[in-house]
Amino acid sequence: MKGEFDLIKRYFAQSTHQRNDVALGIGDDCALLQPPPDQQIATSIDTLVCGRHFLVDVDPTSLGHKALAVNLSDLAAMGAEPAWVMLSLTLPDADQGWRRWLQAFMAGFSALAQQYQMQLIGGDTTRGPLSITVQVQGFAPPDQTMRRGAAKVGDHIYVSGTLGDAGLALELQQQSQSHPQADILRKRLDLPIPRVELGLALRGIAHAAIDISDGLGADLGHICVASGVGAQLQATALPLSTAVAEQVSTHADWRLPLNAGDDYELLFTALPNQAAAIAQAASQSATPIKCIGEIQSGQELSLTLPDGRTLTDINQGYDHFNDV
Amino acid sequence: MKGEFDLIKRYFAQSTHQRNDVALGIGDDCALLQPPPDQQIATSIDTLVCGRHFLVDVDPTSLGHKALAVNLSDLAAMGAEPAWVMLSLTLPDADQGWRRWLQAFMAGFSALAQQYQMQLIGGDTTRGPLSITVQVQGFAPPDQTMRRGAAKVGDHIYVSGTLGDAGLALELQQQSQSHPQADILRKRLDLPIPRVELGLALRGIAHAAIDISDGLGADLGHICVASGVGAQLQATALPLSTAVAEQVSTHADWRLPLNAGDDYELLFTALPNQAAAIAQAASQSATPIKCIGEIQSGQELSLTLPDGRTLTDINQGYDHFNDV
Repeated sequence: MKGEFDLIKRYFAQSTHQRNDVALGIGDDCALLQPPPDQQIATSIDTLVCGRHFLVDVDPTSLGHKALAVNLSDLAAMGAEPAWVMLSLTLPDADQGWRRWLQAFMAGFSALAQQYQMQLIGGDTTRGPLSITVQVQGFAPPDQTMRRGAAKVGDHIYVSGTLGDAGLALELQQQSQSHPQADILRKRLDLPIPRVELGLALRGIAHAAIDISDGLGADLGHICVASGVGAQLQATALPLSTAVAEQVSTHADWRLPLNAGDDYELLFTALPNQAAAIAQAASQSATPIKCIGEIQSGQELSLTLPDGRTLTDINQGYDHFNDV
Repeated sequence: MKGEFDLIKRYFAQSTHQRNDVALGIGDDCALLQPPPDQQIATSIDTLVCGRHFLVDVDPTSLGHKALAVNLSDLAAMGAEPAWVMLSLTLPDADQGWRRWLQAFMAGFSALAQQYQMQLIGGDTTRGPLSITVQVQGFAPPDQTMRRGAAKVGDHIYVSGTLGDAGLALELQQQSQSHPQADILRKRLDLPIPRVELGLALRGIAHAAIDISDGLGADLGHICVASGVGAQLQATALPLSTAVAEQVSTHADWRLPLNAGDDYELLFTALPNQAAAIAQAASQSATPIKCIGEIQSGQELSLTLPDGRTLTDINQGYDHFNDV
C-alpha cells in the first residue's frame, strides 16, 4: 500500500477483520495470501466515479458501504464466501477536509467488511479526481458456483427483495421531489444490502444467478444470452414495495421494476422441483424471495401484464416495448 | 466485466495468455480461479492518474505497458511468479478516438501480459477522468518471499540496472531539453522493465527486497524502517548510465540516483556469503546487478561520497543532507 495517506491507511487497515489466511497484509510490495485447499477463488473489481456513480455531496459513510456492497453483491451472485478486499482511492486532496472524508468513508467500508469477516489486504491512494476502485475475493467450492450461462429451459426464475426502489429514490432525488417514504427509498439507493447469505444458501440448488445492477430486464437478458434461452415473467409476481407499486399502478409504467438499476438483488434460476429447497435457503438466509417467471426456449424475454397483454424485449429497455 | 466497452474488452481479453488455472474468465459476476496447492498468492494494486502519473499525450501503447509493468515490479520484489491481472479503466469517452486509444493501450498491456503468461481475468470500464487501476496476482512458495522487514545487519545491499535514468528523462521532458541519449532515457521512463526473472532467481537467497518506485533513498528507507536497521551506501558503487553519471559529476548532485523515482529496479539485501549465488541469479535472469553497500545497526542511512565525505538521511530527500 502506497501513496500519500500511508498512516491513515495503516490505521484503518486494523479496522477490518484480521484473517488467519492473510500471511502478510498491508505495508509491503504485495500482500501474501494462503487460499484454502479445495476451493476456487471468486474475484471481481468495480470502480465508482464521482459524478457518474455518485454525487460529490453523498454521505461518505454511505459511499464507503456502497463501494464494498456492490462488489460483495458480485460474490453473492457467484455463491462465494467473502474473504479479502483491496481498495484504490483517488482523492482530490490530502488536506484535513479530505482526511475527515476518508475517515467517514472508511467507517462505512470497515463496518461492512467486519460484518463479513473480510480483511483489507492492500490498496493505493493517489491524488486526482475522486474515484474508488474495490477488488474483492472470496471462496467457492468448484462446481457449486452459479454462472450466468447455467439457466435451463423450464427453470423457475426467482428474485430477492423488491425491485425498483433504488431507481425511484434516484428519480425523487433528481427531481427534488418529496415522498412519504423518501428515507426508506434513499436507504435502498445509498445502502444496498448485498445478498451474500442467500448466495451461499443457494450453492448446489440454483442453476444461474446474477446480481441486479443494470435492472431486472437487462440482467435477466445477460443470463438468457449466456444460457441461450428466453424467459417469461409475470407482472403480478414482481415483488414491489408499496412506493414502487403505487408508481407502477398510477402511471401504468413498468420501467422502475424492469429497467431501473442499483437494486443489487439476486436474480437466479432453479429447477421447479427445487422450490422447497429454495424456500429453505430463503428462510435460512432471512432473505425474502419470490418466483417471478420461467425460463423458456427461444430468445425472447417478455413480461405478462396484469391485463394479459405482453411486453416483449424487456431486456432492451422500455423504449423497445412493441405491443403496449 | 461490465461497462460500456464490453465487446472491446472481450476481444482484448483473448489477447492475453489463456491459463489452465482460470476456471472462468471475463464475462460473469466474478472470475473463478484455481490457485496452485502449496503456494501463497502475492497480490498488489496500483492506480495511475492522468496528469499525476502520466500526461494525457503519452503514447497509449507505452502507457499500457507501464500500467502493467509497475504492478509486475511489485510481484518481482516479492519473488512471485505472475499469473492473473484485473484492469479497471476510466475513460473520458467511448467515441472512436478513445476506442483507438484503448486499442493502442491494450496492445502494450497485452504484449507484456503475454510475455509473462498472464491472463486478464476481469475488470471494469467506466466513463470519467482518465485513470487506470491494475491489480495483479502471482504465486510464491511460503517462506521464500522477500519481505521489507527481513534485512539483517551485515547484509550486502544490491540493486539491479542503473539508477536515475527515468528521473533524468522526466527532467529533460519537463524542461523541453535536448540530450544525445534522450531516446534511451525516455524508454527507461516510459517502458520500465519489471525485474520478474531476477525476483524469481533470488528466492531463498535474498533477505529483504523492494522495487525502487520512490527513489533509492526512500525505498531503502522503507526496508530499513521495516527491518529496524540502518544502511551505508558507497557512491562509487552506484550503477549509473553515462548520462546520469555525467549529470552527477557535472553538478556534484546525487539527487538523480538517490531520490528520483520510477526506475522500477530491484533493491535487495543478502548475506555476504551469498555473493556467488547472487551472481548466478543475476546471470540466470540476464539482469545486471551491483553491490552498493551494507546494512548496519542503528537507524542511519548514509552515502559515502567519492571524496570520503558522507551524506546522511538519504531517505529524507536531498534537502535534508546535513554535511555537504
